[in-house]
Amino acid sequence: MSNKIQPRTARGFRDFLPAEMLKREYVIKTVREVFELYGFEPLQTPVIELNETLYGKYGEDAENLIFSAKHGRSDKDELSMRYDLTVPLARVVAQYENQFNFPFKRYQIAPVFRGERPQKGRYREFYQCDVDIVGVADMSADAEIVAVKVRALRQLGFKQFTVKINHRRMLTAIGQYSGVPDDQLADLYRSVDKFDKIGADGVQKELEARGIAPSVVSRMMKLITEQRSGEANLDYLDNILGNLPEAQTSLNDLRQLAENLDDLGVSAEFYDFDLTMVRGLGYYTGPIYETIITEPNLGSVTGGGRYDDLIGLFRRESLPTTGGSLGIERIIDLMDILNLYPAEIGGTVVQVYVTVFDENTKRESARLATQLRDAGINTELDMQGKKLGKQFNHADKKGIPLVAVIGPDEVTQGVVKLKRLKDGEEISVPRADVAEHVQAFLTARS
Amino acid sequence: MSNKIQPRTARGFRDFLPAEMLKREYVIKTVREVFELYGFEPLQTPVIELNETLYGKYGEDAENLIFSAKHGRSDKDELSMRYDLTVPLARVVAQYENQFNFPFKRYQIAPVFRGERPQKGRYREFYQCDVDIVGVADMSADAEIVAVKVRALRQLGFKQFTVKINHRRMLTAIGQYSGVPDDQLADLYRSVDKFDKIGADGVQKELEARGIAPSVVSRMMKLITEQRSGEANLDYLDNILGNLPEAQTSLNDLRQLAENLDDLGVSAEFYDFDLTMVRGLGYYTGPIYETIITEPNLGSVTGGGRYDDLIGLFRRESLPTTGGSLGIERIIDLMDILNLYPAEIGGTVVQVYVTVFDENTKRESARLATQLRDAGINTELDMQGKKLGKQFNHADKKGIPLVAVIGPDEVTQGVVKLKRLKDGEEISVPRADVAEHVQAFLTARS
Repeated sequence: MSNKIQPRTARGFRDFLPAEMLKREYVIKTVREVFELYGFEPLQTPVIELNETLYGKYGEDAENLIFSAKHGRSDKDELSMRYDLTVPLARVVAQYENQFNFPFKRYQIAPVFRGERPQKGRYREFYQCDVDIVGVADMSADAEIVAVKVRALRQLGFKQFTVKINHRRMLTAIGQYSGVPDDQLADLYRSVDKFDKIGADGVQKELEARGIAPSVVSRMMKLITEQRSGEANLDYLDNILGNLPEAQTSLNDLRQLAENLDDLGVSAEFYDFDLTMVRGLGYYTGPIYETIITEPNLGSVTGGGRYDDLIGLFRRESLPTTGGSLGIERIIDLMDILNLYPAEIGGTVVQVYVTVFDENTKRESARLATQLRDAGINTELDMQGKKLGKQFNHADKKGIPLVAVIGPDEVTQGVVKLKRLKDGEEISVPRADVAEHVQAFLTARS
Repeated sequence: MSNKIQPRTARGFRDFLPAEMLKREYVIKTVREVFELYGFEPLQTPVIELNETLYGKYGEDAENLIFSAKHGRSDKDELSMRYDLTVPLARVVAQYENQFNFPFKRYQIAPVFRGERPQKGRYREFYQCDVDIVGVADMSADAEIVAVKVRALRQLGFKQFTVKINHRRMLTAIGQYSGVPDDQLADLYRSVDKFDKIGADGVQKELEARGIAPSVVSRMMKLITEQRSGEANLDYLDNILGNLPEAQTSLNDLRQLAENLDDLGVSAEFYDFDLTMVRGLGYYTGPIYETIITEPNLGSVTGGGRYDDLIGLFRRESLPTTGGSLGIERIIDLMDILNLYPAEIGGTVVQVYVTVFDENTKRESARLATQLRDAGINTELDMQGKKLGKQFNHADKKGIPLVAVIGPDEVTQGVVKLKRLKDGEEISVPRADVAEHVQAFLTARS
């Protein structure tokens, strides 16, 4: 034991100490409750999947980022760590299809692993938080995905945000309308995706630099920059693109989506149809969504869309699927920035700290702690064996709201002294009713 | 997409579909609540640790079983997947010691990874569930570890179990007393550990086969087989071994432990002092514990002990630490075998299934679902678009307790029809009060 190991986490990995953990858990619990309100069920898949399950699903660049997992014994299986929660869902649906009554609505909140270069806000292990509906082709499912995200964000306390909605096939229609050659559509999307960051001029320049004719670029930029907001935008696009079949299909979907959102009680203030919203992943086939926190402007916190073909990689026939992610790591950070955590979240789980006055009353303190725990109160019993003042300091530093003292006088009188650390208020209460008084004292605090 | 991938999990890994997940979550939630009652705080460490953190801590055999994690880019860090939750705790304590107010009491419930040969009940990814107290040398901490486990098991519904308690140094004393040479002590422990499985004769034979003199073996076997139960066993051992310093230290600890357990309200029916209980891991230094479900005899469900030296691998001075695990995977299985899950756990999160009568009333159904969700009721809205009978079947197969119907007649009359699937009972309730009636109907069911 002479060569000490430097205690550290690997680059890109994090520990969550209790105060931080309690905030994470509050967000996850709130989100789960909203998911379950809409009938989404929890699913858990393993951290480790077969290579054949993951490879070929995320594009070539991504394959460098997938962690392989190997142990020292021989093993026929070639293993990797999961890269997202969507491909495992597709595998699960194909693997257990006989056990499911479709539609299958599931959520999963779990860590995924990517060997990206660590930088501020980007980690190699981070949580994803996905809801998906498998087996429904019509827009009622897409509307529910948008609705559940809107409610989750509102439940967490976010007030000003917009779900931007677009359609994969609308992007195709825009290409057709403006005359972008098929083999340059990917370039087109990539540049349009940067609209918010680099502006109309930036997009125009970039597309021209990629060799798309200036007249073509101008035609498309006019369409994009003159778009309306809300449902009026669908009429605007119908006027201009309505004769293109891809546009017609998209507009039908988006109009139905709007109707369904209305029925599900999602106010139009929370969503918008926006041609410049382009999601990166290649597997989307229908409506796509992304949520932007607008006031203040803090970027994207959810993403998703319809991907009707993915399950077909694991199954003879595919199943229509739509879903989305809440960017839970980002949300956890934004909750701090926007001060959305309730006052009682964070710090500690402990509600009362039971001090030990001295060696002679130690057993009474232990019994008092047991009495409080029996009443369902989270109780820490002193184990430091230090002076009372140090015990109070310990409780205060940890953020524990109440301290209980049971010294020789209290034992004789059959009472317990309770002190609220926030304002120093003290009361003596009968030992028999101590749990009720603690509850009342705790409630009064908030 | 012509080459379909066979959808499967790697050997030794599992998916948890919703019905099973809900049971797992019930167990985890119950256990967490008990941990927090005792003031244990949640900690989360990453799945991936540096090799240097994990290597050399678990013995040579184990090193073959640690999964290494590698991605396609160059990386100075050599990485592995966590093998347990104890070594990461030791790292965390050393890494953030300035941020902690000791004692540090934490729990962690999380998956660990071991490349073992998969077999019934043994997986390569499984959950561990640990509570530990760092920074307390005296037995009040050990008692709290035992107390929290006893309460967790009782809260889950287990009725007949025994925490078997022994002491690492008592095992040393037994070796000294019976005359087993120091270099054969490990053999001694290994055989004694099998006492429950192979009996006294089996242990005796095995030890003799290992070359320990028959007279030495007999002397030890007599001590073990004649031991008493409960605290009387401490007096028995004191009589025979009391002059050996190692025994004296152990007996002092165990007597204090019993006193502390009494103060913490742990009835003596739930624990016993047993010389044949030997824990495998080399790092224990004080009391060790293991819990056996006794009626029916279903083996071990918790283990733990004091390990005062481990943190010293990461820090100049070690810190006294004691802790234990609940064998949560085994507990989840035993809950099924012993029928301990409450009736409402498992199946589905959904409380009401809102049917869609036809295309014309679809929007009314969506609005009803929204109304129920607003009232906090977990609601699934039909998306199959099939006939009402099939919708009822879907709800029934999923185990959803209530179905709501809002057809043209109900719309006209301003009512909703509710049907309880268990007994077929049906009522019509005013649309405005539907949420209250659903709540009442659901409560009446249990």
